[in-house]
Amino acid sequence: MGTGRLEAFSDGVLAIVITIMVLELPVPRGQGLATLAPLLPAFLSYVLSFIYVGIYWNNHHHMLQVTRRINGAVLWANLHLLFWLSLIPFVTAWTGENQFAPIPTAAYGVVLMMAAVAYLVLERSILAVDGPDSPIAAAVSHSLKELLSPALYLLAIPLALVRPWIAGAIYVTVALIWLRPDRRIERIIAAAGDDTAPSVSTESGREG
Amino acid sequence: MGTGRLEAFSDGVLAIVITIMVLELPVPRGQGLATLAPLLPAFLSYVLSFIYVGIYWNNHHHMLQVTRRINGAVLWANLHLLFWLSLIPFVTAWTGENQFAPIPTAAYGVVLMMAAVAYLVLERSILAVDGPDSPIAAAVSHSLKELLSPALYLLAIPLALVRPWIAGAIYVTVALIWLRPDRRIERIIAAAGDDTAPSVSTESGREG
Amino acid sequence: MGTGRLEAFSDGVLAIVITIMVLELPVPRGQGLATLAPLLPAFLSYVLSFIYVGIYWNNHHHMLQVTRRINGAVLWANLHLLFWLSLIPFVTAWTGENQFAPIPTAAYGVVLMMAAVAYLVLERSILAVDGPDSPIAAAVSHSLKELLSPALYLLAIPLALVRPWIAGAIYVTVALIWLRPDRRIERIIAAAGDDTAPSVSTESGREG
Amino acid sequence: MGTGRLEAFSDGVLAIVITIMVLELPVPRGQGLATLAPLLPAFLSYVLSFIYVGIYWNNHHHMLQVTRRINGAVLWANLHLLFWLSLIPFVTAWTGENQFAPIPTAAYGVVLMMAAVAYLVLERSILAVDGPDSPIAAAVSHSLKELLSPALYLLAIPLALVRPWIAGAIYVTVALIWLRPDRRIERIIAAAGDDTAPSVSTESGREG
Repeated sequence: MGTGRLEAFSDGVLAIVITIMVLELPVPRGQGLATLAPLLPAFLSYVLSFIYVGIYWNNHHHMLQVTRRINGAVLWANLHLLFWLSLIPFVTAWTGENQFAPIPTAAYGVVLMMAAVAYLVLERSILAVDGPDSPIAAAVSHSLKELLSPALYLLAIPLALVRPWIAGAIYVTVALIWLRPDRRIERIIAAAGDDTAPSVSTESGREG
Repeated sequence: MGTGRLEAFSDGVLAIVITIMVLELPVPRGQGLATLAPLLPAFLSYVLSFIYVGIYWNNHHHMLQVTRRINGAVLWANLHLLFWLSLIPFVTAWTGENQFAPIPTAAYGVVLMMAAVAYLVLERSILAVDGPDSPIAAAVSHSLKELLSPALYLLAIPLALVRPWIAGAIYVTVALIWLRPDRRIERIIAAAGDDTAPSVSTESGREG
Repeated sequence: MGTGRLEAFSDGVLAIVITIMVLELPVPRGQGLATLAPLLPAFLSYVLSFIYVGIYWNNHHHMLQVTRRINGAVLWANLHLLFWLSLIPFVTAWTGENQFAPIPTAAYGVVLMMAAVAYLVLERSILAVDGPDSPIAAAVSHSLKELLSPALYLLAIPLALVRPWIAGAIYVTVALIWLRPDRRIERIIAAAGDDTAPSVSTESGREG
Repeated sequence: MGTGRLEAFSDGVLAIVITIMVLELPVPRGQGLATLAPLLPAFLSYVLSFIYVGIYWNNHHHMLQVTRRINGAVLWANLHLLFWLSLIPFVTAWTGENQFAPIPTAAYGVVLMMAAVAYLVLERSILAVDGPDSPIAAAVSHSLKELLSPALYLLAIPLALVRPWIAGAIYVTVALIWLRPDRRIERIIAAAGDDTAPSVSTESGREG
């Protein structure tokens, strides 16, 4: 089973998740600049969530580029990841409307952590199909960042209950760590060049 | 007529259906954990509907992978399926806001049943074009699950009016039955390997 | 310039238009069957609009299948069509909430008529690029239905102001006329078979 | 790294941005023609924003057609552009609900200017990967319009605070300047013909 339609469906869901968050930004009632001020927390949580969904899209894109084969278990692991990402607009709105109050900020962290875990599960389920000698197995062998992120969220969630701004700082830090797509995978793609036939033919088939 | 754009349009509609349901989850008014409690029924119906749309996407994906040819009737059978699936966010919100009350729970079942029937109709309309010796004809020849599902919904709908929780349990049961994509079709794809030229060229054309 | 991304973008917009209409269906306040009754006009206008967007998607799909070449003017003619189709959720909600009152029903007709005109403009702009000997020129040479539809809408709009139900009946009639995708184009595709290289290579490139 | 999935994701986001604006058009409360009158500013801002998103989609489409290679930096430059475009529904609704009041009209200009700058950044980041001898380098060498637009927005933003209608006229003017897709790029595509192998194979791979 190829990856084309899995990518298309994921692109669709991620495009909607990243865009509908703007529907939760309440249009100010008045005409003055002052009416924008109360929107600031909502806007900041929108920016952070936009970056997070962007990171997931980038990493998903990179990972699927070196994926040659998938099966039904991968489809479900992917839907599981999309489920947690679909909750981001909900926690973004809740956090933003309550000026990063403790419980909403912790809930934001729970959704981020579950998404990070779901991403790891998806990666492992692809590895299980694609085999130990696959390009993706080489690409993800030392995934420090992937294990660090859930650990940082796990730290941030209880902290959110007492010092929400520390939790917020941790969420921003994790985003900064991930802002660059996975160099390991870019290196594998570059190294593979024209001789890893399956991966490259995927590319030329879909993208020329 | 190939299947590419039918799949792209269906992916788009299903991605939107699965994602806009989160817009119906009302953002809690307060900041406390207690404000989440009244959302629990809405959240559970969201999870169930997410899984159902995921099942439909998976099965649709599998079925179209072994489809070689479609016509205008298939396009309309597909739109008919999408119509019923587009009503899932509506019944999900109605059921969730009313704590699985009898009438909303029955309405949820009606939409699920109509979607199941529409899926059968789509399958038959593809078979009619693609011929009795097509890969899809081999794949769907013993479709016990497909006939069992509407029967279970038919049982659940009247039960919902007196014991909504039994209907809910039946909906969950059907979802569990379908959670794995259709092994029959995966077996056909695997068996076909590189020698069913049309199906395989579809794959390599779209997905490498 | 090929048609791939024009189709992808149009699929996206049409998928959203057809799906967000369900967000305008107000979730009933109560739990009883009686709470569904006031939704009936909204539901009927939803069904009619779903069918109309489905018709446009089908015809767009058919037309672009026999299109070999496009240019900037075609991109704008396509956006112009999408603009009028994007107003369908608005007039659907207005008509549905006002039980097919005269002015909303007439407005619904105006949007349908403008979409029909925009479709004709798109067709002509493709013809202008693709040349008089193109498959599409052969396909659309006797477009009775395409000229009949705007004429019927033009009749329905003033009628809506005095007898909205007659206008509604005309809208349903036009939908029934269009329910089948364009046989002319299916015939051209079939006749072309494997010897219209450009059209067929489009097919195999995108859809296998 | 090919451009296929970047285009698919961008198409998805742009399709959603252009379509969800209609959800912000409030459905009139009454049935009369007079109830449409207060919607006129909202409708005009909708039309203008629809055209702007259409322009961005057209130009993005043209630019990516002559792009052969991208990297992680391009992915982020693209997400940055999508971020500013995702704010268009927000400023459209704010401007429309306040009859083009000074502050909302200026905010509309700020979002347009940031999007124009983000587009320039995306163009430069593609140039940096694709090399000085690439088709895109030839296509964008004399980008007067691209530098003129931000300059006009910069002029319009302070003017909006004292004479909003002048700012509005400037926004309309810039849209008119851009209404035609980039001739330079069409010329490059035409000149390239079948001999710029990478660019053309992209085309035939995706669009036939």
